[in-house]
Parts: sequence; C-alpha cells; structure tokens
Amino acid sequence: MLRSLLLGLAPVAFVVGESAAQGELRFADLGRCSLESGQVLEDCRVAYRTFGELNSQKSNAVLFPTQFMGTSATIAEYIGPDGLVDDADYFVIAVDAFGNAISTSPSNSTSQPGDLFPQVSIRDMVASQHRLVTEVFGLSSLRGVVGISMGGMQAFEWAVSYPGFAEKVVSIASSPRLAAYDLVLWETVLRLLSVYQECQCQEAVSALMGISFLTGNSPDYHARVSPRDSMPGIISWMDGQVFAVPIAQNLAVQVRAMIGHNVAAPYHDSFEEAASRIQADVLVIVTPEDHVVTPAPALEFAEVLGAKTIKLPNDCGHNGLRCDSQMLSLGTQRFLAERH
Amino acid sequence: MLRSLLLGLAPVAFVVGESAAQGELRFADLGRCSLESGQVLEDCRVAYRTFGELNSQKSNAVLFPTQFMGTSATIAEYIGPDGLVDDADYFVIAVDAFGNAISTSPSNSTSQPGDLFPQVSIRDMVASQHRLVTEVFGLSSLRGVVGISMGGMQAFEWAVSYPGFAEKVVSIASSPRLAAYDLVLWETVLRLLSVYQECQCQEAVSALMGISFLTGNSPDYHARVSPRDSMPGIISWMDGQVFAVPIAQNLAVQVRAMIGHNVAAPYHDSFEEAASRIQADVLVIVTPEDHVVTPAPALEFAEVLGAKTIKLPNDCGHNGLRCDSQMLSLGTQRFLAERH
Repeated sequence: MLRSLLLGLAPVAFVVGESAAQGELRFADLGRCSLESGQVLEDCRVAYRTFGELNSQKSNAVLFPTQFMGTSATIAEYIGPDGLVDDADYFVIAVDAFGNAISTSPSNSTSQPGDLFPQVSIRDMVASQHRLVTEVFGLSSLRGVVGISMGGMQAFEWAVSYPGFAEKVVSIASSPRLAAYDLVLWETVLRLLSVYQECQCQEAVSALMGISFLTGNSPDYHARVSPRDSMPGIISWMDGQVFAVPIAQNLAVQVRAMIGHNVAAPYHDSFEEAASRIQADVLVIVTPEDHVVTPAPALEFAEVLGAKTIKLPNDCGHNGLRCDSQMLSLGTQRFLAERH
Repeated sequence: MLRSLLLGLAPVAFVVGESAAQGELRFADLGRCSLESGQVLEDCRVAYRTFGELNSQKSNAVLFPTQFMGTSATIAEYIGPDGLVDDADYFVIAVDAFGNAISTSPSNSTSQPGDLFPQVSIRDMVASQHRLVTEVFGLSSLRGVVGISMGGMQAFEWAVSYPGFAEKVVSIASSPRLAAYDLVLWETVLRLLSVYQECQCQEAVSALMGISFLTGNSPDYHARVSPRDSMPGIISWMDGQVFAVPIAQNLAVQVRAMIGHNVAAPYHDSFEEAASRIQADVLVIVTPEDHVVTPAPALEFAEVLGAKTIKLPNDCGHNGLRCDSQMLSLGTQRFLAERH
C-alpha cells in the first residue's frame, strides 16, 4: 500500500544519475524556453531516458511523460512485455516534467531558483517535449504518447497542441481539465505547501501525507486492505516523511501546472473545439473511484472525441492501477499496435 | 452546498444564549466530572435544550447528542414532524458535547483553559449525559438516544455503557469505532490544528476547509453539483473562514475523542462482547459513500447485534443526509415508535 501511495502525492527521494537497466539519464539543454505566460525559463533542461531501439523508419517512438512527482526512472516499471509499452517493439522516450527536480526545477535552477522560478504550464511541458523530440531526436512524428495522471494531462495536451504529430495518444487516470473536486484537492495541497515553507514543520508534511492517503485510494479500498491495526504503520509513514523547502517549491510548480491545465483554454473553453483539432486516435482509461483525478472530464472529452474508453472495473482509486494491471497493459499495448 | 459542509468539519460561529423556538439554552453544573483517563474535568458543565413535553410516566424522553462542532441549537433542525424526532410525541433533550464551546471546553473553562483541558472521551461525554438525565431530569430510563456522526458515536456508547437505560438507539452516519480511513482523516486534521496553533495562518484554516470539502461529500456528488465555475466561490469559502486558537483547541478535543472512540475497548476489543451487553433495540443508518465516517464498522457491528440497518440509497456522502431526508426521518420516527 505504501509503495503505491508514493506514486501518488508522496514526496520521493530523488536520486539523480543512476544508470541501470531502465535506461541512462540524459539531458537535453534547450537554452531558453518561452513559456505561455510570456515569461522565459532560463537554462531550460529536459531530462529523459530511452528504452528499446528506434527503427530505421523512425516510426516506433513512444513518448512517456512523467506523473506528478514522478521521474523518468519511475517510468521504467511501465516498460516491458508486461507493461504499458513493450520496448521490444517501441523506442520509448521517458521524459521528466519541469519541476520534478531532474528537469529544470526550482530546486536545481541556478538562474531562477526557488521562488524566482517562473510558473510553467502543462502546455509548456509539452512544448519542451516537442523540442526534445524534433531537435534532439530529429523525429517528425511519434507512434504514440502514453501518460498516467499528470503524464496523461500532457498526453491530452499533445493531442491538441500538436495535431498529427502522434498517431496514438493514451491518457490514463487523467483529465483534459480538472473537475472542481480535483481543483479543491490541489488548492488544499498548495496551501499546505505554503504553510510548510513558512513553518518547515513536520505536521504540515504529515498532513500532506494524510491527504495523499485519503485521496490516493478509495475509502472502500482501505476498508478492505487497511485494518485498524495498520494505524501505527500509517502514522509512522505520515510522520516519517521529510522534504526540504526546494522540494516543496517543486511540488507547487507542478500543482499549479495541473490547476491551470485545460486543453480547451485556447479554444473558448470548448471541448468540442479542442477535440476538433485532434487527429490522433485517443484511448482514455479511467478508474471509477479515482479521487485524485476524478474521471468525469476525461469521460466527457472521450465522448466528444468518440474516443475509445476503458473503465478499469475496480474500486482501488488513483493509486490502484495495479488492481487491474493486466487489463491496463493489454488495453494500452493493443491500442498502440492497432493499424487502420 | 456550503451550508451542508458547515455541518461537517467547518468551524461555525458559536452564539451562546439565544433563546428561540428551538428551546432555551440551559446549563447543568455537575461539579467535577471524573474522566476515564483518571483525570478530572473541573467546573463540569453540560449545556442542553429541550423540545416538547415530558409525559407523566416520564417514558417519552429522547436524548439527542451533538455531532462534531455541532451544538444543541443545530439539533433543532432535526426536531419536528418532518424531522428525526417529533417533539409533539417526545421530550427531546439536545445535549452539547464537551469541547463544543457551549458545554465545558478549552475555550470556556476558567480552571482548565486551552492546553490545560484534560482529554475527554466519547464515553466521558456519555457519562456526563447520564448524570444530566438522572440527576437533573430524575429519569431512570430514556425512550431513545438518537445521534448523527459524533452524536451517533455517543448513541452507540450509550447502548453499551448503560444497557437497559435507553429502549431505542439510533446511530446515523456513525461508527462504534473508527476505521483506519477515518482515523487518518482525523490524524490529518489534528496535525493541521497543531500547525494552526503555531502559525495562526489562514492557509492552515483553508487547508482544513479543503479537507472538509474533499471528504464531506463524495467526488461523485461534486461531479454533479460543483461545476468548475463554482471554484471562485469555493476558494472564497476556503480562504474566508476564520477561527481563534481556543476554537482549534476545542476541535482537537473532539477529534481526539473520536480517534479514541471504541465501544469495544473495555471488552477485549470484541464487538461480540460489547454487543452482548446491549439491551436496546438499535437502528444503524449509513450512507454508502460516507467518506468522513466510513460505514463498514457500523455495518459490522449491526450484523453482530442483529440490528436493523438502513442504507440511504444516495452517493452524497456524510454531509448529504438531506439527499434522502424523508427516508431518514421516516425510518427514525417509525423505529422510535415501534413497540414490541
């Protein structure tokens, strides 16, 4: 349980530079990245790892952006024959989102550290990835973009911002724009991060962990798997997390990006207009009891698009994708492989 | 929506001393109340209001304890022909729980103010109510005890602590002991209250309001009733609440009482043993999507007891009892009236 929670809101210890089976960490220095706010991200650096081999036609590349707090290293667990994308068939580019402490972030920027860091958007993340794919890899198309949670927000944004670039877009436990419930969650997290930066006190971190627990999996899931006598362990987990102020600033950057996320914003807030731009085949996968990214907006957008949807038949919630991991993997792999 | 949220976690402005249709506020001075912790609550004062008339046989008294943050004034809305208890038939004693700023609380105790206030338990609340009922009203029995949420915890405790005293016990959206999910909610709230006492900052209050929103009603409910354009109002509500440190201390007392609540604690933690003491007819009413007091423990205890249960067929959650108010009222009224 705790491990799955860590994939949600929980801060994770960031280890930079390990090279392992999951692909070596590399960096693309993009110079200055213009942001949609009009600000500029200086020393704009995008980190990534690749898995598998690019074929000679350059037609098998799949981009896999990171979830909130995730890194390209954590994408590795979704790669392989039993994963979402098999690197025997595809050249997977796992790319670190701004603010994740690996790509340019408040915690690692020398020219715009901490509170000097400009606000980046999901659209900015996607624009940097487009530069990575075109400028560094010289690709003019992608077989697919696959993302989970905040990664799925980037996948939706790819479909709208770069129509025709990716043939297939898979957005999992994610949203084209957040529902009010989700927005309240992140507004609450933002306020806690602000409190934490003031007090640097354990209670604020513990409260963040508590919120992670309460939303990461559904109450019904916990009624099954978290007996009362698991409380000492849960309390130790809540009260045992630590993170530094720069990490709180990183988190706030990604949280604000999610709050501002709206694929329809440039199109009169209209799902219909945004959807009309999309050329990719889109697959939307949701879990009904997802209390971090509630599924209604994704399902609504899928309906407008006429996109294929998969509703994972479990009550585990956002961090419980593993409850139907086979359906999730098979559904994604088949969709990526389908030719028209 | 905001009003129903206020019945949940939200701080409410406490107005003492109004006398209105809902019954005049009265106080019973109980002197010193011995607590199960071994500590003593000095200047032990229990506030209450009554509705209706005690009959000559003294057989129609119904005790109605308060929910978290609730007061005897807020009980008034549940009294009447369309409410849970009709004061045309019953003599209703609405009683303020310790820590609610009306009965003895950190905010109003002169001998044990603030952090000097001893921890009280749900069992201590019930013991003080037993003294009120016997010493002040001279009753040797109650027709019923009816409570919602923390009030329902007191109702369960009445059934176990004073077997034979109440003929009927109705526990609504409540629990005989909290599930891990609920405990994490209150541990999170406790940490936020602690942060607030340190920082006295708006962000901590806003975060509490956010958690109230996220748990008070279900995500599905909000997907229906809270569109994205309601966000400015929700944010204003989150950021517009204020409360003083003594109120935070009051809240913490009641939160700790709920965390410690366990009707089976004196009986080897066994629901079977606790249930075997009960002589009252018990009615358990739950809402399946209750994310403040998750229903599993109440349903388990009801099964052990062979108690009647009503599952309100809505997805509104803890603060959405009004979604099935007629079923709730009729179910409670019929149960109270039933004779064997």
